[in-house]
Amino acid sequence: MSKYWSAVARGLTPYVPGEQPKLSKLVKLNTNENPYPPSPRALAALRDEIGDDGATLRLYPDPNADRLKAAIAHHFAGHGIAPANVFVGNGSDEVLAHAFQGLLKHDRPIRFPDITYSFYPVYCGLYGVDYEMAALDDDFALVVDDYLRPNGGIIFPNPNAPTGRLLPLDAVERIVAGNPESVVVVDEAYIDFAGDAIPTAVALVAKYPNLLVVQTLSKSRALAGLRIGFAVGHPELIDALERVKNSFNSYPLDRLAIAAGVAAMEDETHFDTTRRAVVASREALVAEMSKLGFVILPSAANFIFARHPQHDAGTLAAALRERSIIVRHFKSPRIEQFLRITIGTDAQCMALLAALREIL
Amino acid sequence: MSKYWSAVARGLTPYVPGEQPKLSKLVKLNTNENPYPPSPRALAALRDEIGDDGATLRLYPDPNADRLKAAIAHHFAGHGIAPANVFVGNGSDEVLAHAFQGLLKHDRPIRFPDITYSFYPVYCGLYGVDYEMAALDDDFALVVDDYLRPNGGIIFPNPNAPTGRLLPLDAVERIVAGNPESVVVVDEAYIDFAGDAIPTAVALVAKYPNLLVVQTLSKSRALAGLRIGFAVGHPELIDALERVKNSFNSYPLDRLAIAAGVAAMEDETHFDTTRRAVVASREALVAEMSKLGFVILPSAANFIFARHPQHDAGTLAAALRERSIIVRHFKSPRIEQFLRITIGTDAQCMALLAALREIL
Repeated sequence: MSKYWSAVARGLTPYVPGEQPKLSKLVKLNTNENPYPPSPRALAALRDEIGDDGATLRLYPDPNADRLKAAIAHHFAGHGIAPANVFVGNGSDEVLAHAFQGLLKHDRPIRFPDITYSFYPVYCGLYGVDYEMAALDDDFALVVDDYLRPNGGIIFPNPNAPTGRLLPLDAVERIVAGNPESVVVVDEAYIDFAGDAIPTAVALVAKYPNLLVVQTLSKSRALAGLRIGFAVGHPELIDALERVKNSFNSYPLDRLAIAAGVAAMEDETHFDTTRRAVVASREALVAEMSKLGFVILPSAANFIFARHPQHDAGTLAAALRERSIIVRHFKSPRIEQFLRITIGTDAQCMALLAALREIL
Repeated sequence: MSKYWSAVARGLTPYVPGEQPKLSKLVKLNTNENPYPPSPRALAALRDEIGDDGATLRLYPDPNADRLKAAIAHHFAGHGIAPANVFVGNGSDEVLAHAFQGLLKHDRPIRFPDITYSFYPVYCGLYGVDYEMAALDDDFALVVDDYLRPNGGIIFPNPNAPTGRLLPLDAVERIVAGNPESVVVVDEAYIDFAGDAIPTAVALVAKYPNLLVVQTLSKSRALAGLRIGFAVGHPELIDALERVKNSFNSYPLDRLAIAAGVAAMEDETHFDTTRRAVVASREALVAEMSKLGFVILPSAANFIFARHPQHDAGTLAAALRERSIIVRHFKSPRIEQFLRITIGTDAQCMALLAALREIL
């Protein structure tokens, strides 16, 4: 603490991201990265942008990233999405931050689940947003009626994190339709792993002016290393995000991120093949871990949330770590007996199962 | 305007960046980019990071960018700088934003020049920071005594933008020493073009706990396309920036930006060769434009700020644009008769001079 810090800086409790170990020998199942590499078309686009002498890198990027907005709009064209419905940012965390400052800060407290992405209360601290948490039910499902009370805004991940549970699209619509005076932010970082037909709330954007859907290229497009997130919503909501962004940093997305992002959005085949492979691995892993006695919440994400009735989660996480496997363990009320385990390649899943068989 | 916008979003007057034209045939002298490409070592580092299959891009970057902090500290090792003195962000605009929120927001208004980087009042609007502007003198020089009054913080660019004028290091030190209770932010985006021996205030960091120096890799390292900025200061000031950053976005710098940034900071030869070439081109351009009757402020930057006593600046800018040359014209009080012209390659400078001879 220092006399030079602002009151805001003094009051913060920063977010703690999952460990990014510098050793590469580890089986890293702790931060929900995609086990497959990004689209080869994205890599080709990167090499093109660098070229022989990197001459374009001396120039600022397009501050509006128009090509990327167009590619994202095209991906959702079946839902009637145009570039004016799209905002892009330096990872979905930046997009969420701008949404908290520009759309969720009102007189009334906002609402989000008691068990959810732990960055939400941090944003509230950063921007002075009041909040109330609504408890998930005993099965860790979101209770729709809890979000039909007076509020300054609503945000929840779908599928939820770290539980992996999906709220069906009709329930999402009940929340959006029931709050015409508030912005409802649906944080869909993991939605592409939720089914063959992706149950995204982007399908509702044309109908509801108060809905903002946030997604990322970090998970289903395997580009966590490049930091690209986006939001889809009514142009008036997008405008608020643009105003905040243009008062913060004119060029949040660099030239390489834009180039790779466009190509990754365009490569629907790679996207579809890899997301389905992750889902297949998840189902196989769930079956095997169930045989070992784990209780696993139904997952619509690229991770599972699992507990073992006879084994302490912290002890299990430590035993896995001794075997060079990292999973995430949150020491938080209600979930301290769960492990969040990212779906790796089939080889990584087998290594995990072998280690668990040894430990149990 | 929408009922969904927060009061902050409603009140903003966003920053307007210089145009990034999508046509490539233009001679682009409007946003102070480096005319030379970045270090070949930076390009090699990018290609290495992408590799054959982009396998590392699926993984989050190091949230602390430790390698980049180490490379920056090493560059300033002669000034006693360690990694704990360094903060990195997604361009110096993001670094400045965090400084406004974490270090410059106090009860008293902050002070900055009346003619300066036009993003400063925008940040004040975003974070609710009060400010008072101190007028530059008739020669557009900063008046040190104006910064020795009670204040909540001080910020100025050195060299100043858009004037290009340098405040000597002993005058910077008078301001820092005279404000032991406030943070003084010296925004050195252009300092590397100020002389053979770079007069950076980083030299004062070990002596003053209230000094934060902000720099960027966009100008002298020719990496505007990759968005890398940094701050150097006492670890307590760096801590405040880290707290804000970790409450906003855990991973602001992507893997490619980190890789290129490290290599660019390490390539002292390319840095020195290109910054000296820009300075030589500037001196030649100033000499030729003076012959054409332009009055040019003494520049320590990679741009010049020039007016012609017989020609309206807006008319000149339009005439240059008709000849495919873009310069920047600010329609602001006191400077509406000036043009800000980036130093291009020698060929671009000759094209500019040829066009001016035609117009005048």
